[in-house]
Amino acid sequence: MTTIDTTLGERAPTAPPRKVREHLMELLEERLRAFFREEQERRSTAYSSASDLVSSVADLVGAGGKRVRPAFCISGYLAAGGDPDDHRVLRAAVALELLHAAALIHDDIMDAATRRRGVPTVHEKHSASHRSGGWRGEDRRYGEGVAVLAGDLALVYADQFMATAPAMVDALWAELRTELIVGQFVDVHVAAAAEFPVDPDLARWIALSKSGRYTIHRPLEVGAAIAGRPDLGNAFEAYGAAIGEAFQLRDDIMDAFGDGQVTGKPDGLDLTSHKMTLLLGAAMERDLEIRDLVHAGEMSAGSLRTRLRETGVRVDIERHIDRLVDDGCQAIAKVPLAAGWREELVEMARLVAYRDC
Amino acid sequence: MTTIDTTLGERAPTAPPRKVREHLMELLEERLRAFFREEQERRSTAYSSASDLVSSVADLVGAGGKRVRPAFCISGYLAAGGDPDDHRVLRAAVALELLHAAALIHDDIMDAATRRRGVPTVHEKHSASHRSGGWRGEDRRYGEGVAVLAGDLALVYADQFMATAPAMVDALWAELRTELIVGQFVDVHVAAAAEFPVDPDLARWIALSKSGRYTIHRPLEVGAAIAGRPDLGNAFEAYGAAIGEAFQLRDDIMDAFGDGQVTGKPDGLDLTSHKMTLLLGAAMERDLEIRDLVHAGEMSAGSLRTRLRETGVRVDIERHIDRLVDDGCQAIAKVPLAAGWREELVEMARLVAYRDC
Repeated sequence: MTTIDTTLGERAPTAPPRKVREHLMELLEERLRAFFREEQERRSTAYSSASDLVSSVADLVGAGGKRVRPAFCISGYLAAGGDPDDHRVLRAAVALELLHAAALIHDDIMDAATRRRGVPTVHEKHSASHRSGGWRGEDRRYGEGVAVLAGDLALVYADQFMATAPAMVDALWAELRTELIVGQFVDVHVAAAAEFPVDPDLARWIALSKSGRYTIHRPLEVGAAIAGRPDLGNAFEAYGAAIGEAFQLRDDIMDAFGDGQVTGKPDGLDLTSHKMTLLLGAAMERDLEIRDLVHAGEMSAGSLRTRLRETGVRVDIERHIDRLVDDGCQAIAKVPLAAGWREELVEMARLVAYRDC
Repeated sequence: MTTIDTTLGERAPTAPPRKVREHLMELLEERLRAFFREEQERRSTAYSSASDLVSSVADLVGAGGKRVRPAFCISGYLAAGGDPDDHRVLRAAVALELLHAAALIHDDIMDAATRRRGVPTVHEKHSASHRSGGWRGEDRRYGEGVAVLAGDLALVYADQFMATAPAMVDALWAELRTELIVGQFVDVHVAAAAEFPVDPDLARWIALSKSGRYTIHRPLEVGAAIAGRPDLGNAFEAYGAAIGEAFQLRDDIMDAFGDGQVTGKPDGLDLTSHKMTLLLGAAMERDLEIRDLVHAGEMSAGSLRTRLRETGVRVDIERHIDRLVDDGCQAIAKVPLAAGWREELVEMARLVAYRDC
């Protein structure tokens, strides 16, 4: 255990927190690469094409991504005083990134998304192979079927990495995954079936279940649990809820106004697919015309974008993000954290809330 | 530990092995029901429809199924001398049944299957809700998306139950799931892309990966590992490989000749979807005309059925099943098993190889 500082004024740490995390994040990348290399080799022995499925997961993970969940898991661990030389937390961090890959692969099927991280989505890539090879059956069914299996494989790999975590992580890990899946179901269900107006509270619940909690709160909590500090659960939950909402609002803003060249996925996808996003919920609460457009079923990505720009709603939502960042930082202002980590978590909150990609 | 008998002549056990297993299988059903009841209640608190996803898994598990995998897991445990009053093996047995449910839900999407266990498949049911509700978007994408999530949820539940098993089960559990998923991928890939004739060895590899190993060999091995008897691994592998192949051949025969009213799924589905089944591989090896029909791409369920009936191929395959049953029973003839369990495993081999539903 590194030094735990229970006061607000902290001692200088032996190594800057960010450096320690960055070192572990580099090891994480090495582990991911080594795992996929070994697994591709192993699965191709019986039938050479078998490793194509492994490659689909490896390619997505290798194509980038911000590694937000591993970064928060490792930070939760180090902030809780976990030993930086004990690398067990890395397996949990790898598990979180692989779970995220599984969620992306399966979500992209449901959204009929064609691009992710600047490259074709898994189902799109395999549908294209089917078409260009002139194979039997339907290209869509084949591509989506392979993507279902690629996501399943990522889910199993994730679990394989988390299996070595201490027993107290088991319940957290089960809950994290279940709320992610159930949250995604409610999102898909509401987008298809719900009568508008949808309750903005429901939009917030969906956003927290399918993204906010598993992006920040749960990874921090897993990291703290591995460091033997379950006492940080409440503070990390409050920080994670606020910063997770800010993270998701920023995601929605980038979807609505962003540049697909930067985000690596098409713009306006959520807006045009009747997703009850946090942004839409917040906008409906703030602007009656937006609510009327949504009620009348006449909301298009273009009309919402224009309205958000022309009224004060976008500025107002930016202020809401500011408040969320403040709330999150307040939540960890007084809990005992390892030296330097309070400032680092504040900095991370700003990074995710004000990112532009 | 109950008495371990290392000779072929065994002492009378205190309770007949089957009775002990049947008692545990009843407890398994209770656990499944209690788990789903609790989980449905829990997930509906935030949003009432959220529990629909849980119900989709619960309904499939509750609609029947032979519980082959739990039965072999519990049998492996008891045959290895595991204490019948220690119920930890039940969690592993539940995990195996939930994994099977996940595999069925996802496989049914890939096969565009409409019925399973006598009721609509998960994706079919949700597509129908979409149509009858006149919801937004495409009914197929909605139904299949929900089924992807239902399968994911079953996979996570499975893992949650297996998480409490001893650490030596971790690697087995990871391998069991990975080979199942990769085997299914190769199956789907070969059905779409491969040039016929497919190597019958490949057909055997696919059948063992996606069904044989995870149905008999791996469940037995998990049960033995929980009883602290990894030494039984080789004997259970040989038994499982033979009986698993017999199980799958019987499955293929029921698909080709069976009565959908009895099996609960449409007949001839594999035959008409270019699946390289064990039966087809065995038939191609035994009959040149069948091979030619397959090569010419003119194989239909009807023509293959007729040819199998008219020639001696079907009889020949039945003899092959007889040999597999003999081989499987030989494999466990001399290993130390708890009293009465050798005979019980022989009986179970016959039950799965000669079942008619």
